[in-house]
Amino acid sequence: MNAPDAIPPSAASRLPADLLARLGGLLGDRFTLAAAVRAQHGKDESYHAAAPPDAVAFVRSTEEVQAVVKACAEHRVPVIPFGTGTGLEGHVAALHGGVTIDLSPMNRILAVHEGDLDVQVEAGVTRKQLNAHLRDSGLFFPIDPGADASLGGMAATRASGTNAVRYGTMRENVLGLTVVLSDGSVIKTGGRARKSAAGYDLTRVFVGSEGTLGVITEVTLRLYGIPQAMSAAVCAFPTIEDAVNTVIETIQSGIPVARIELLDEVQLDAINRYSKLDYAVQPTLFFEFHGTEAGVMEQVEMVKAITAEHGGSAFRWATQAEDRNKLWQARHNAYYAALALRPGAKGWATDVCVPISRLADCISETKREIRESKMLAPLVGHVGDGNFHLTYVIDPSDSAEMETAQRLNERMVHRALAMGGTCTGEHGVGYGKIDFVEAEHGPAVDAMRRIKRAFDPDNIMNPGKILRM
Amino acid sequence: MNAPDAIPPSAASRLPADLLARLGGLLGDRFTLAAAVRAQHGKDESYHAAAPPDAVAFVRSTEEVQAVVKACAEHRVPVIPFGTGTGLEGHVAALHGGVTIDLSPMNRILAVHEGDLDVQVEAGVTRKQLNAHLRDSGLFFPIDPGADASLGGMAATRASGTNAVRYGTMRENVLGLTVVLSDGSVIKTGGRARKSAAGYDLTRVFVGSEGTLGVITEVTLRLYGIPQAMSAAVCAFPTIEDAVNTVIETIQSGIPVARIELLDEVQLDAINRYSKLDYAVQPTLFFEFHGTEAGVMEQVEMVKAITAEHGGSAFRWATQAEDRNKLWQARHNAYYAALALRPGAKGWATDVCVPISRLADCISETKREIRESKMLAPLVGHVGDGNFHLTYVIDPSDSAEMETAQRLNERMVHRALAMGGTCTGEHGVGYGKIDFVEAEHGPAVDAMRRIKRAFDPDNIMNPGKILRM
Repeated sequence: MNAPDAIPPSAASRLPADLLARLGGLLGDRFTLAAAVRAQHGKDESYHAAAPPDAVAFVRSTEEVQAVVKACAEHRVPVIPFGTGTGLEGHVAALHGGVTIDLSPMNRILAVHEGDLDVQVEAGVTRKQLNAHLRDSGLFFPIDPGADASLGGMAATRASGTNAVRYGTMRENVLGLTVVLSDGSVIKTGGRARKSAAGYDLTRVFVGSEGTLGVITEVTLRLYGIPQAMSAAVCAFPTIEDAVNTVIETIQSGIPVARIELLDEVQLDAINRYSKLDYAVQPTLFFEFHGTEAGVMEQVEMVKAITAEHGGSAFRWATQAEDRNKLWQARHNAYYAALALRPGAKGWATDVCVPISRLADCISETKREIRESKMLAPLVGHVGDGNFHLTYVIDPSDSAEMETAQRLNERMVHRALAMGGTCTGEHGVGYGKIDFVEAEHGPAVDAMRRIKRAFDPDNIMNPGKILRM
Repeated sequence: MNAPDAIPPSAASRLPADLLARLGGLLGDRFTLAAAVRAQHGKDESYHAAAPPDAVAFVRSTEEVQAVVKACAEHRVPVIPFGTGTGLEGHVAALHGGVTIDLSPMNRILAVHEGDLDVQVEAGVTRKQLNAHLRDSGLFFPIDPGADASLGGMAATRASGTNAVRYGTMRENVLGLTVVLSDGSVIKTGGRARKSAAGYDLTRVFVGSEGTLGVITEVTLRLYGIPQAMSAAVCAFPTIEDAVNTVIETIQSGIPVARIELLDEVQLDAINRYSKLDYAVQPTLFFEFHGTEAGVMEQVEMVKAITAEHGGSAFRWATQAEDRNKLWQARHNAYYAALALRPGAKGWATDVCVPISRLADCISETKREIRESKMLAPLVGHVGDGNFHLTYVIDPSDSAEMETAQRLNERMVHRALAMGGTCTGEHGVGYGKIDFVEAEHGPAVDAMRRIKRAFDPDNIMNPGKILRM
């Protein structure tokens, strides 16, 4: 990293000298204008065009975040929070330049309250780091978006993932936050009580706000006891409708499955190749069951009865931790497996979420359009929530392919909205889905703008994301 | 009800003639200035001083609410939403006069989506009305604050109650809202998808906002399948610490109890007398277990083992629906039973909520102070959430008693806050706890004020509640 005096002139010209001096003085070589660092912080794992910030500030404390935001606010310079850069809708792109605050050095686990099943962490702690730390406590944090994301980033994007059907999303699992606002003031939202009726729910205002209302620096999270028994199983189906109808019946029956993941035959093939597995190349459900020994057995029997009605195969089991981890790692590698189907291609990942009764229709129509378009687009889904994902595997330099992907994506989103669903179940808006927010929420978008203006009147907090101001 | 031409001059003088004419023209005899109706709408079930509005508007549609709010906004006349008037912190008191909007005529159940486990209702539908409607569907709505409150009011106050330990509060169970804002615009928040990452969580902004940001006119709620098996049991303990420690271990073990309610010996005695029951006059837990037959048996065995370690009595069972209803009706009548201990007295009901590890300390210290003060104040609690209630049974004309109740209440709240808890787990702020909000949230109260100003710049929406502006 370069100290401010090593700034290349072209970069330096975009930020006021006073700001450079203050942030350099504050952070030393943790404030950098190095092109490689800037480039790395302007892109995520998506197909969206990168936009490097003018500088990157690596911060170690809430007070440092506060100082950076205050300095930027005085100059009306944009501030973009950065966790691990694993987003999928361009959340960290510095569309209007500015200073990216990299929170990864804020990686301390501040307090584990085992008796209260909660934990307080700095925003840069990742979910895997937290679970490694908890390993001997008998507790775990279930929310699992696939990537080893930072917990601050997961709160900021209202992340969820495979376990959400049982344990909820970040919306349900964040008890409180420390947030630096656009004027540099610091607030603590929420608390450690399991419920409260004392005033507006500021925690939920910031969960999912994608850095547009403030910088999250600390997070208090719910924890859960590691279940006595956990078992995972794989079941293949003749058609995707059979698989989806199994999901619908399972959810409607109230069976508390911990995970219920759909992979279409395209994705299954990709996973087999990428992770050297030999699952049948058919629409497939991955299940996980959590509970007491007897409870898990009971859930399994109930789900087996439902799968049998829909032509499901015998269950392939993964009961040992090692086997389960292998299975879920293969599931988590779905995106990379999809990309490996076409070397050199890029992934355009997208997700929607619909009421469960419409899931079969939504998936069938979407897959029909993909087939007709001859696109390569494997489908996976956290289908217990009505949420599914596509990855268009494309050559971004082929404008016809890009246009087709864009057209199919738009049609899928509008299909989901027409079914009472949402344009994104968990990836968030960033700038990739900003045009769909209006279509989904109508006049309520103006209410969102009121909140944005209330917290960020100068529009310096991650501008260009979620809302057009 | 009186039509505008029957307005008593003293009341009429407070509202502009133009407003009276418009609202009278709009609603006919559903707009009234009758003293008895106004008086009834200015008070709730608490000890707080009543404050009647200048007029009451009984509305039948979102459009009518919109018209009333628009008319009031033009004259900067306060608007106070009213459901069933069963609040406990003075939420409906018209502290600055104005027009109360009574939503009870908006009592239509708009759509039950059995397959998606959700329902859309008008704000005036009560929870008992909803559950009666659902009876044949195999579904139910679990949130149960005791009173047969309106679902709009429950959303507005972020209500919870006995089932929250298993099913969450209104925070977790409201999927979406229709809200009339202070300028008369109408927004729909949320949607029917189980999760969404598409923009700010407006639903959670309005849940718990107590009418200070807008008038909730429709609510979409989660539903649950009625469990295959339900069983309730009563267990007495030698000391309140034994009972509370049983609760703490049960929660920490992750046993999914549906209800776990504490009653101290004073409350138990009151209930025995009021509901003609013969429970042992000891600190007591009321349990309810939901699940499959086998699952309920398993939960019962685990909880029995914990109670035995803490000197708990044998379980007294209520397994038939009729017996369970009797048991929970007795629990719900706790407040009236407390009042009946001292004929002519009033109840000062208050609640706090703390992290579960501090629950025994918080309750023990609170009860010690009550004993020392010689006050009559039975204790009940939704203790699985760390939430408990006191009812000071007092003579409001006795200033010494009132001062003692106030002092004890303040000490209890500050004790809960010092333990990482909240000044109210479920009753809300109203105007009764407005001074504690600042103590609990500190600088975050200013962030709440930003939201209030963003949605209600003229402070006409239920002014004087939650926040001092």
